[in-house]
Amino acid sequence: MTRAELNQRIEEKKSFLCVGLDPDLNKIPKHLLELEDPIFEFNKAIIDATHDLAVAYKPNTAFYEAYGLKGWQSLEKTIAYINEHYGDLFTIADAKRGDIGNTSAMYAKAFLETLNFDSITVAPYMGEDSVVPFLGLKNKWVILLALTSNIGSSNFQVLENTQSKKLFEEVLEQSKEWATDDEMMYVVGATKAKALSEIRTIIPNHFLLVPGVGAQGGSLEEVYKYGKAQDGIGLLVNSSRGIIYSSSKEDFASSARKSALELQSAMMQLLD
Amino acid sequence: MTRAELNQRIEEKKSFLCVGLDPDLNKIPKHLLELEDPIFEFNKAIIDATHDLAVAYKPNTAFYEAYGLKGWQSLEKTIAYINEHYGDLFTIADAKRGDIGNTSAMYAKAFLETLNFDSITVAPYMGEDSVVPFLGLKNKWVILLALTSNIGSSNFQVLENTQSKKLFEEVLEQSKEWATDDEMMYVVGATKAKALSEIRTIIPNHFLLVPGVGAQGGSLEEVYKYGKAQDGIGLLVNSSRGIIYSSSKEDFASSARKSALELQSAMMQLLD
Repeated sequence: MTRAELNQRIEEKKSFLCVGLDPDLNKIPKHLLELEDPIFEFNKAIIDATHDLAVAYKPNTAFYEAYGLKGWQSLEKTIAYINEHYGDLFTIADAKRGDIGNTSAMYAKAFLETLNFDSITVAPYMGEDSVVPFLGLKNKWVILLALTSNIGSSNFQVLENTQSKKLFEEVLEQSKEWATDDEMMYVVGATKAKALSEIRTIIPNHFLLVPGVGAQGGSLEEVYKYGKAQDGIGLLVNSSRGIIYSSSKEDFASSARKSALELQSAMMQLLD
Repeated sequence: MTRAELNQRIEEKKSFLCVGLDPDLNKIPKHLLELEDPIFEFNKAIIDATHDLAVAYKPNTAFYEAYGLKGWQSLEKTIAYINEHYGDLFTIADAKRGDIGNTSAMYAKAFLETLNFDSITVAPYMGEDSVVPFLGLKNKWVILLALTSNIGSSNFQVLENTQSKKLFEEVLEQSKEWATDDEMMYVVGATKAKALSEIRTIIPNHFLLVPGVGAQGGSLEEVYKYGKAQDGIGLLVNSSRGIIYSSSKEDFASSARKSALELQSAMMQLLD
């Protein structure tokens, strides 16, 4: 999917919602646990109930790896299900990988080829040669961590260097030279909404994947106000727990739809 | 395994060798490809042929994930094989994970509980609350990236902040407060051997996992000279390709032993 196409889908669906698929066997409805693959059945029901309200889905790989082989199988089935039934959705492997060149190439193969996600989140600490192997596959994307939504983002990401640049600004400045805005996006937490205007002076048109609205306390209005791209919308706002765990009962899917609809309605108002 | 126990094994085996298990179906001997699980058979043969010369084994998860479900199964079988047959070996999941708290907790479960590795490599970019969930499991370890062996380490890791600290020094200074040297180790590349003396002024006794000897050009002698801990040896020097791909023929295991023996002999000389 190109940047223009993704912006177009946002306009059509009146939504820049990304649904985070972080399934936890301790949190999903009890009646699903009797099924052969509770995690896949949970995801499938959530996707079926919300696909028209969202433009992207983001399974976080940790929640699958925690269940070993069975979890990996649920991940495979989930991405295959989306690709088969909802080919217009943008898919994100939230894997936060990053390693030396030949190893990053193996991760790229794992997520962008074998599993066939549209994109993967990547950590910048190891620098250019840890990121570049994920690039160059047609219509595939790297989503690089810049300024994250958690408390620990204050440990290193905002430290100022001798050139008066914070680390996340340095990451943006350097990495925007490694790829175009048709191959690279950035993670910027909603809890850092005011940093967004500053970030837009460095990368006016790159898509931003924005977690932290809802459970983590970020504001959708502020994200839109400070984070919208110059050309197109350029935002994917993620909600995980706020949608998928709206209810822990048999009505979980319709309840997830209700929560997604609330966010999408708020997005529609902002877009109009 | 405690730090004292690991140092003791190094003394007994006269070795601080870690063997990196990065299996690649394009590189392993052709005759193995006919077997049901070529990757596991390859690893098993390498481990059986080298276990007395090494103190640690380090599968890099990328090389398993690249093969999807089958790859994950090979990883499960490999760690189970080591734990069952060679319980005295230290095992490292080279996964370079790191995410917000509840997600890091799932990765900790995946690698330190479900798969039962002794340790996992973790990326520091997201800060304290992305690292802490990996800590606190009895005799389990976090191995935090500090100064890596690749070219891209120069992009961000060595940038100086306004307190005249390089990023990797800042990572060491802050993170050494999050855990003791009985729970935390650091990755420092052999290609940065001279930075090791500086690093030892910050963390005199933490174990260092040192990749980059061999294929990437680092010197074992320099690593030992500048990197040895004050109390005990405190070093695990990793070699992956230099050992496991010594030969691509039927003699691959005995050839791997020969390469491992060369490194171990050099280590024995340094230790004496």
